[in-house]
Amino acid sequence: MNPDITRERENATFNVEKLTHILDGGIEKTKRRREIESLVISDPDFQSEDLNFLSRSERYDAAVKKSAQMILKLREYGISDPEEIYCYKSVFRGNHQEALGLHFSMFLPTLYTQCNKEQFKKWVPLAESFKAMGTYAQTELGHGTHLRGLETTATYDPATQEFVLNSPTITSIKWWPGGLGKTSNHAIVLAQLHTQGKCHGLHAFIVPLRSMNTHIPLPGVVVGDIGPKFGFDEVDNGYLKLENVRIPREHMLMKYAKVEADGTYVKPPSAKLTYGTMVFIRSMIVGEASSALAKSCTIAIRYSSVRHQSEIRPGEPEPQIMDYQTQQYKLFPLLATAYAYKFVGQYMNQVYHRITGDISQGDFSELPELHALSAGLKAFTTWTASEGIEVCRMACGGHGYSRCSALPDIYVNFVATCTYEGENTVMMLQTARFLIKSYQQASAGHQLSGIVSYLNESERRLQPQSVSSRPTVVNVNDLASLVEAYKLRAAKLVEVAAKSIHQELQKRVSQEDAWNNSAIDLVRASNAHCHYVVVKLFAAKLGEIGDTGVHSVLSTLALLYALQGIQQHSGDFLQTGLLSVPQLSQVSQRLKELLAQLRPNAVALVDAFDYCDEMLNSVLGRYDGNVYEHMFEWARRSPLNKTEVHESYHKYLKPLQAKL
Amino acid sequence: MNPDITRERENATFNVEKLTHILDGGIEKTKRRREIESLVISDPDFQSEDLNFLSRSERYDAAVKKSAQMILKLREYGISDPEEIYCYKSVFRGNHQEALGLHFSMFLPTLYTQCNKEQFKKWVPLAESFKAMGTYAQTELGHGTHLRGLETTATYDPATQEFVLNSPTITSIKWWPGGLGKTSNHAIVLAQLHTQGKCHGLHAFIVPLRSMNTHIPLPGVVVGDIGPKFGFDEVDNGYLKLENVRIPREHMLMKYAKVEADGTYVKPPSAKLTYGTMVFIRSMIVGEASSALAKSCTIAIRYSSVRHQSEIRPGEPEPQIMDYQTQQYKLFPLLATAYAYKFVGQYMNQVYHRITGDISQGDFSELPELHALSAGLKAFTTWTASEGIEVCRMACGGHGYSRCSALPDIYVNFVATCTYEGENTVMMLQTARFLIKSYQQASAGHQLSGIVSYLNESERRLQPQSVSSRPTVVNVNDLASLVEAYKLRAAKLVEVAAKSIHQELQKRVSQEDAWNNSAIDLVRASNAHCHYVVVKLFAAKLGEIGDTGVHSVLSTLALLYALQGIQQHSGDFLQTGLLSVPQLSQVSQRLKELLAQLRPNAVALVDAFDYCDEMLNSVLGRYDGNVYEHMFEWARRSPLNKTEVHESYHKYLKPLQAKL
Repeated sequence: MNPDITRERENATFNVEKLTHILDGGIEKTKRRREIESLVISDPDFQSEDLNFLSRSERYDAAVKKSAQMILKLREYGISDPEEIYCYKSVFRGNHQEALGLHFSMFLPTLYTQCNKEQFKKWVPLAESFKAMGTYAQTELGHGTHLRGLETTATYDPATQEFVLNSPTITSIKWWPGGLGKTSNHAIVLAQLHTQGKCHGLHAFIVPLRSMNTHIPLPGVVVGDIGPKFGFDEVDNGYLKLENVRIPREHMLMKYAKVEADGTYVKPPSAKLTYGTMVFIRSMIVGEASSALAKSCTIAIRYSSVRHQSEIRPGEPEPQIMDYQTQQYKLFPLLATAYAYKFVGQYMNQVYHRITGDISQGDFSELPELHALSAGLKAFTTWTASEGIEVCRMACGGHGYSRCSALPDIYVNFVATCTYEGENTVMMLQTARFLIKSYQQASAGHQLSGIVSYLNESERRLQPQSVSSRPTVVNVNDLASLVEAYKLRAAKLVEVAAKSIHQELQKRVSQEDAWNNSAIDLVRASNAHCHYVVVKLFAAKLGEIGDTGVHSVLSTLALLYALQGIQQHSGDFLQTGLLSVPQLSQVSQRLKELLAQLRPNAVALVDAFDYCDEMLNSVLGRYDGNVYEHMFEWARRSPLNKTEVHESYHKYLKPLQAKL
Repeated sequence: MNPDITRERENATFNVEKLTHILDGGIEKTKRRREIESLVISDPDFQSEDLNFLSRSERYDAAVKKSAQMILKLREYGISDPEEIYCYKSVFRGNHQEALGLHFSMFLPTLYTQCNKEQFKKWVPLAESFKAMGTYAQTELGHGTHLRGLETTATYDPATQEFVLNSPTITSIKWWPGGLGKTSNHAIVLAQLHTQGKCHGLHAFIVPLRSMNTHIPLPGVVVGDIGPKFGFDEVDNGYLKLENVRIPREHMLMKYAKVEADGTYVKPPSAKLTYGTMVFIRSMIVGEASSALAKSCTIAIRYSSVRHQSEIRPGEPEPQIMDYQTQQYKLFPLLATAYAYKFVGQYMNQVYHRITGDISQGDFSELPELHALSAGLKAFTTWTASEGIEVCRMACGGHGYSRCSALPDIYVNFVATCTYEGENTVMMLQTARFLIKSYQQASAGHQLSGIVSYLNESERRLQPQSVSSRPTVVNVNDLASLVEAYKLRAAKLVEVAAKSIHQELQKRVSQEDAWNNSAIDLVRASNAHCHYVVVKLFAAKLGEIGDTGVHSVLSTLALLYALQGIQQHSGDFLQTGLLSVPQLSQVSQRLKELLAQLRPNAVALVDAFDYCDEMLNSVLGRYDGNVYEHMFEWARRSPLNKTEVHESYHKYLKPLQAKL
């Protein structure tokens, strides 16, 4: 054990284990999580060479192997609870992806929820036994977020009682689905349903892609891998071009909408039913934002405690780089953010489960608010976490650029969340739509409830209007007061956006153009709303924590999180008269004090995330702090070191020398 | 040609070609650049498969091949002007790296400048004929920015008149030098010189690494590749462990310092001589920041003009995504930034050449200012450009994540500049040291000249002290007035940092701790200083432009750049009383107008950068806008598509199905 990191742990002022229990949701959950993790860690089948040393084809191969092993092992161990499966996967995936991911996350769930009885009986056993390996093909080469724009067609032919599927244009080729390129032999394909000469919009169809015996693509199916990406090297994201592919009528998923044998179309009872899945996935992504940032902070903070560089005081030994104020200022607010998002993720998960109960009883009342919240928070947390990972990486100096730090892998795999499951700017505008609607309802005299109740007229009238109108009352040392300030900032920025729309309308532009011409303000309002929610939830969490040591350190983190946000957006707070200029200097001063106050607990706070070395897979983030010897060992395994003299020397350099 | 992009070009209000000449520095330079580019583009030897399809070893192989070809071709064409070589390399490298880069950028220049006459005669011909292929080994596993911390030793043995080189610890292993792992047979090694029982600090030694006949590592030389990184896949960044490696005394570079045969050490005449190279490299990096951002903007803006998505007005066709205000707000300020940095790069290059003249005459007076400026601007531009590349990438939606967009390559290769040639935070603190020193000189009554003259007492007294003390005079529509505002902001933030140091000193902490405890303020001051310089240089450039159309569009860009910076840092401008709250609303409004105003010129503005398709290597950024058909074609070449059925199916999936 590196003595520097040992000393860090000795100096911590709180019980790390207790904080871990809080993050897991209880001592029992911590115990069970560790049991599951140790199943993977101790399993010789999951020991493998660093994926970064392999070619893309080898990486894909290794991922398929692991997925196949996982399926057998989960059965062997009797692990079937989705949360426990998620935990198991998290360990063996490390910072990479799973080859059969979409089969589990989209293919099976869609079968479960959208098959009618006969379909369920046929397809679920096939899928559960992996005879049918599937993916979910929605996005097309030219069409993403805007589902109505999708072009793939499924035209019903009553003569043969079949659907004929086609990709009528280049832009209609299905593009991006994970596992589509090489792995899957089936896909659930979203296509525009045409029957009896009419288009009825998007519906889902089970399309066989490859022979279940030979795995060779079926006639009319042009399928393949879309090529290398920023990350996700292990995954065969694919393309699919359908050329008059015929499937039986029964391959349309018919739990809700139907096409009868003669081609008669029967409408689904409600359109809201698909909302739930999106909300669930987006709230999962918030949790992943926390994890990715927590891992990155673990790596950067542990390394900063063993890394010595330059000098603060001349003549003294080089200090730990964590002693530099600039380093603390980079890392500690991100550490606070990782904690904040952890609690936001927990909250969204709880709300989701509560509301799902309501939905199954036919009560959709809370769904719009949750939908808006999940969209905005998905965007808010993935943007900030992505930037934060890169800050952590660069805070490790040159070595952060090496794949052995794991930070490049964490970044490229996480940053995709800014784009998938709803592009972030589009998400922010969806949240804004809800905020503006709520604002208008409040302005019309309706009393709002829930998280947007701050938009009620009565509250808004209490807001300060400008710097001079009234003294500010924010106490920069009091978290509750800061939550209030964030709330008033959000209220103000929603109002600014609403007024922009109003002004545009007065110029006689259409409602839609007024919206687009105010889009910058709308995104800003959504950001402020989400920021308020995060600060509020972090503050609320503190109320649940009994242990004094843990409460104290988390309070410091929460205050740091809130004040850092104020400093970063100081213009908003000054502009709305929520803070005065002298108070802003106080904020700067207080931030520096909080950094110094957190310094002794930094390593303990990342230890509490409890990522084992096998999950981090980072030489810089090792628990024992013995970084350099292991970096040397890792480098020597680089494939370029397989031979002393690379063949390119004989091929190009020696001949070059001869010619000169 | 895609009709959307044709229409964009038709709508431009200025002459693209004229702007290109301005960027190149004259019509003749444009012509010559295009000639050189066409030499590479038309050369069948430089046609190769996309490097993203290859394994790392294959990429390295391809890079060595290209470098070897380049050397022969440059001789054949008689290209020897460094700028023209740089241009030639830029084309064949594309978004990747060159295998022999360090031989040209560090090994040869160091021989040119630090060899004495005899050494020059021996080594320069060897290096120029590539018999000696070299790199520059400074950074060690545990030591980067802080050169005094380097541990490699070179101990003089008068008995044999040799130096004995050693890597005494794990942390002393040389790490990161490009071309060190497999390519180079020599390295210039920086080591602590010990002779006659005394250490004389860092000196440079020529160390043979591999046999010049067989390329096999020499005895005592442990050398290899450091493994995969975020980018630079083509480069064999290496490690080097020296175990009692003996080199003749004449292998120490002795133009300045010397060790005589008996071991007597002779000091160099001046320490400032190495400053120049650093300044040069950092000013080159500013130019690269501009290029990387310009390429990224070219890709994102062209794609945004052919990409249709969602709807603004119901019932109408999907609009070009460039019509969304949020998209304009992402991309146009970055476009303005790319132009700004282009002009900053030009300026620094000019200053560098002017000052080099002075230096060769023994006049070092301007060097400290230039050194401080190049450090800060290197950090300022690389940070913002790196973030900007990612914004461009994400503005392309999902396809930005594909390697076919080229944006991942541009990012991973460029972002390294934030860390190398001086870690950015360290650079900012170096600039701050110059600013604080200047501030203190001014406070002591000295009259400053040059770029920091705004710190003079007389000017500072004219600054507004707080929001209420006096009316603000900034005109948000006038660029000169905005330059003034940026200047006053910089002055204010330097003062804040100086006061923080002063306050810390009053708490009786040491000078060094006071500095560290003010580091956040110091970095902030440097940022503000650099931002001022950029806005000022952009404004100054406008004065040189005669053509009305070009002047008009660049003026719009400059105003956008300045106002966007004010909006992003509105807290600073409010806090210092430079802007009032109502003015900030004006800024927001004006920004929206500028975005709309730039919209018709966006494609023409990126066309003016004049990157040919071969240099961009981006399906999304194609000049003809025919994106989707080429994306499909690119994907089909993916190595995973070499076989219809991947072997992993037979190895793992079929057996799995049999077991379930």
